[in-house]
Amino acid sequence: MARVSQEHLDARRRQIIDGAALCFARNGFHATSMQDVLKEVGLSAGAVYRYFRGKDELIAAIVSEVLTDISGVFESAARQSPPPPPDVLVGRALSAVLDLRPGMRDGARSHFPRLMIQVWTETLRDERLSALMAGVYARVRAAWVSIVEGYQEAGMMRADIPADHVARTMIAAAQGFAAQYALFDEVPVEALRDGVRALMSMGETS
Amino acid sequence: MARVSQEHLDARRRQIIDGAALCFARNGFHATSMQDVLKEVGLSAGAVYRYFRGKDELIAAIVSEVLTDISGVFESAARQSPPPPPDVLVGRALSAVLDLRPGMRDGARSHFPRLMIQVWTETLRDERLSALMAGVYARVRAAWVSIVEGYQEAGMMRADIPADHVARTMIAAAQGFAAQYALFDEVPVEALRDGVRALMSMGETS
Repeated sequence: MARVSQEHLDARRRQIIDGAALCFARNGFHATSMQDVLKEVGLSAGAVYRYFRGKDELIAAIVSEVLTDISGVFESAARQSPPPPPDVLVGRALSAVLDLRPGMRDGARSHFPRLMIQVWTETLRDERLSALMAGVYARVRAAWVSIVEGYQEAGMMRADIPADHVARTMIAAAQGFAAQYALFDEVPVEALRDGVRALMSMGETS
Repeated sequence: MARVSQEHLDARRRQIIDGAALCFARNGFHATSMQDVLKEVGLSAGAVYRYFRGKDELIAAIVSEVLTDISGVFESAARQSPPPPPDVLVGRALSAVLDLRPGMRDGARSHFPRLMIQVWTETLRDERLSALMAGVYARVRAAWVSIVEGYQEAGMMRADIPADHVARTMIAAAQGFAAQYALFDEVPVEALRDGVRALMSMGETS
């Protein structure tokens, strides 16, 4: 039997993860069976179990990949110098998240946010995934804290509020956008960007 | 057999819903069995099935109640006259959400946000719940749109951005806060309030 190249193995693994991610995004982790995944990727059980011993291992791989992808987007948004204002930054980060998985698009709509909120729910009851999630969140938070400190040092933002609180708020706005996108009719990224921009126009209240 | 009063029936129904909500918040809708619920509420299967024909009916009742509770909080926050600025408004609404179910507190921590994000995931794959969710979201959005129009008419906020975009952004910040609260170590409501306040201090960028 011919030896299978690493490239082939990687491509096959990718194919399984992408197909499974689409199934999970559509129907959730619990309502999706390994049979559904096999059907989606068009492979035999033997071929799939060579890469993942079962649904739990597949879920863990996908959760890990989703979290890494998302933190990559937010960290690279945070590395822009000089950092754009928060409305622009949040808008760019969200556009990049929606573009992460072209294979998860259905016309103009991405299924990726659906997968994201299912990942949140899944981490609630799995300590290992929860620890993974906490690590990613800490990294994204640190990246945004340094941006906020930049605003504060440049005199663009009042400096008497902990940068971490602002970082959490910006991340919350992005997370909430993802929830709305997954739950309701399409929400344009511009809505959040403009909304942050409008809040920025209000000035001090105390 | 003595006739059971409506009051008694209502109290019993309440007891079942509260116990089930706690189970679902802890372990999710799918990993919780009716046996877990019976054990939590300390009632027999016969007693519980008199009120709910099964887990699906119980889930639907809880989802409906959670959504109604949350929309009530946001709508009443929106009715304050004159409306407080967005940082204060968001902070008050979140405090009220965390106080909604004292029975879901575990020390200082509320399990309610955990239940919220599980409700989101559940609505993704259930058309009836999804329609319920969409209706509640539309009501909350309308309430916040009228507040934002108030800011704009009073000259507190730039008026060239659709009020709906700002409403969605404020709701997104609150939803994202709930997600962080559920997923990570306790996040104080003040973090979001202060974060919005800091954003408000930035002024125009375009």
